[in-house]
Amino acid sequence: MLQLDTQLLQPRMPQSTTTAVMIIGGAEDKIHGRLILQTFFQRAGGGDARIAIIPSASREPAVIGSRYHDIFEEMGAKAIEVLDIRERSHGEDSTWQSFVEDCTGVFMTGGDQLRLYELLSDTPIMERVRMRAQLGEITLAGTSAGAAVMGQQMIAGGGSGESPNRSLVDMTTGLGIIPELVVDQHFHNRNRMARLLSAVAAHTDRLGVGIDEDTCAMFEGNGSFQVIGKGTVTVVDPGAVSYTNYATAGSTDPISLHNLRVHILSHGDRYDLNKREIVSPGR
Amino acid sequence: MLQLDTQLLQPRMPQSTTTAVMIIGGAEDKIHGRLILQTFFQRAGGGDARIAIIPSASREPAVIGSRYHDIFEEMGAKAIEVLDIRERSHGEDSTWQSFVEDCTGVFMTGGDQLRLYELLSDTPIMERVRMRAQLGEITLAGTSAGAAVMGQQMIAGGGSGESPNRSLVDMTTGLGIIPELVVDQHFHNRNRMARLLSAVAAHTDRLGVGIDEDTCAMFEGNGSFQVIGKGTVTVVDPGAVSYTNYATAGSTDPISLHNLRVHILSHGDRYDLNKREIVSPGR
Repeated sequence: MLQLDTQLLQPRMPQSTTTAVMIIGGAEDKIHGRLILQTFFQRAGGGDARIAIIPSASREPAVIGSRYHDIFEEMGAKAIEVLDIRERSHGEDSTWQSFVEDCTGVFMTGGDQLRLYELLSDTPIMERVRMRAQLGEITLAGTSAGAAVMGQQMIAGGGSGESPNRSLVDMTTGLGIIPELVVDQHFHNRNRMARLLSAVAAHTDRLGVGIDEDTCAMFEGNGSFQVIGKGTVTVVDPGAVSYTNYATAGSTDPISLHNLRVHILSHGDRYDLNKREIVSPGR
Repeated sequence: MLQLDTQLLQPRMPQSTTTAVMIIGGAEDKIHGRLILQTFFQRAGGGDARIAIIPSASREPAVIGSRYHDIFEEMGAKAIEVLDIRERSHGEDSTWQSFVEDCTGVFMTGGDQLRLYELLSDTPIMERVRMRAQLGEITLAGTSAGAAVMGQQMIAGGGSGESPNRSLVDMTTGLGIIPELVVDQHFHNRNRMARLLSAVAAHTDRLGVGIDEDTCAMFEGNGSFQVIGKGTVTVVDPGAVSYTNYATAGSTDPISLHNLRVHILSHGDRYDLNKREIVSPGR
């Protein structure tokens, strides 16, 4: 969506103003107001929604798949399919491929982001999901592990309770839906600032985005996102960093990182990813 | 030292280049290299040092006082006195007052910063310590609770594991040694970024400084500090903040805070408090 060649995009279809890529920090409300899940449902077409659920991050994909299935069914989706991909060959399943071709929304659940990446990366199904999301044809949401995979660089795991350092975070490759992001989730809830800082020090050409639980960074076709939900979205922008010792630091040495720009955003706030600035405060 | 009227300062004595105010994030090495404590000892005069230890933050002041006493004795200090101030009237003790008049260094231990503040604020002894430190006549160090009291605004306590919000931090008044700071300690070790952000949102005219364990921000007479030790010093500078919802947010609402400047500094890095910029990277 955001790094897409606009020449490719424009002849195909105008960017929809309703579809979105929704990056959810995990533990979104599934019982009461369901603000984030309702927003996904509406952005996927509401009563006309045809929703694919990808539960592959989880080691209990049937359980978690059916939980989201029931939620979207109760909301009134027209069609729901759980793409229970448990091995890479399932990523070529023709029934699921054709569902993805016609769907209006895709929801990736939580679990383990490495598992999700290993099962889905470069499969025909995931390639179509990515392409259609980037073209603005569908609404794609990912929560927790499903959020972590959104960037080209992915946080696979890490720790807390230490000074920022190289060994505090394990970096690997993500699905590259919005390539310029390094996403962290359950963010302030699990005290992940030091690990996100460590990740950003390793990739100063990217943008760190830490998303709290029951909170969503909702990216729209215009390259901006707005914050929805109960917590904050923390943006760590290394665009103006003047110095880091990352390249020379030992694996547990503390990291220097000078001149970061940091924003703490809450419900309603908007951020422009291309200009790297706040569009407007929420209220 | 830093907000001092220079007209007051200059006739009295030239700013020493050796004295310092050392703000230590707690758990400084007391056994092996003792880098920070050795630096304090040297900055207090080395073999000529006359050191006052203020253990009043602790509920076991005799134990902690004697521990530091033994360390500085072993290093070779000329005179050491534990100012075991356990009630406010002790802050007028004439023997201790005259020791403070002649001392070259003062060390404030850890414990509870509220206790330290309540016992010492506005006492004759503390007023002299503050004045002499600000004039650059002595080296003043504080670790943990002794670090927390350094600003005019003080973090009395708080939590972690939540989005930044007003109830995540308890703010009160500090001793105002370096008034413009809001200090937090055991910083990344205890995952205190969200609470420091919450504190800074409440005081956007101040500078947030989070200091890791076994790490020191050493302020010198020229208004800059350098980092010494094993971890990082995190500077949260709200000088360019364009928006915060702090004034209108409910006590547990997430806080918006747009356009912070953040620096992660490690050993050898220097920061200029007056210009609010990095002086030079460490290496």
